[in-house]
Amino acid sequence: MDDARFAWLVLVPQRKDVTEIADLPAPERALLWQEVDRASAVLRLAVPCDKLNLGALGNIVRQLHVHVVARREGDAAWPGPVWGSGAAERYTDEAREALADRLREALRWLR
Amino acid sequence: MDDARFAWLVLVPQRKDVTEIADLPAPERALLWQEVDRASAVLRLAVPCDKLNLGALGNIVRQLHVHVVARREGDAAWPGPVWGSGAAERYTDEAREALADRLREALRWLR
Repeated sequence: MDDARFAWLVLVPQRKDVTEIADLPAPERALLWQEVDRASAVLRLAVPCDKLNLGALGNIVRQLHVHVVARREGDAAWPGPVWGSGAAERYTDEAREALADRLREALRWLR
Repeated sequence: MDDARFAWLVLVPQRKDVTEIADLPAPERALLWQEVDRASAVLRLAVPCDKLNLGALGNIVRQLHVHVVARREGDAAWPGPVWGSGAAERYTDEAREALADRLREALRWLR
């Protein structure tokens, strides 16, 4: 998520017109949960994280997506949820690339 | 959750001092995701539901818990998240029991 206030991943299964996790076939649902677990582990390895926050809401954007967010005590929305917590602060190109590099490296370590 | 504004389940794995889903052993994590899937199915069967919302936050209450909420368009927090969305409205004893009965019945159907 292009919001420098939080290290925030959004997983978007490549399944057209699916809105609910509950509507995925069971094997795809199991795979999505594995991917959520992996995204959680990647964040904890790559960035400071006092608490993971997971969410699947989709009240506004209906295409199925799952949020995995590394929260820090005292961050811009703490202790509330990140959803609906004010305006995003865009990353600079440099900061975004640096974060993506750290995440990719963590993903390699976890393989 | 004792908040009559939403049909809202909270799953609390019986695992002492665990805060993150990511800290559960893999088989227990897989079981929790199955239970989330089942709670989702129960809600959809038992109550009106335009969108399911799942969340694992725990920023305030650290004991591991997962929220599974049946949302309706136009409900008290729509389209925002239920977390931090104002004061709960307690169920009457009668309404709470009626909802519990519907949920138990749906759970039996799904077995």
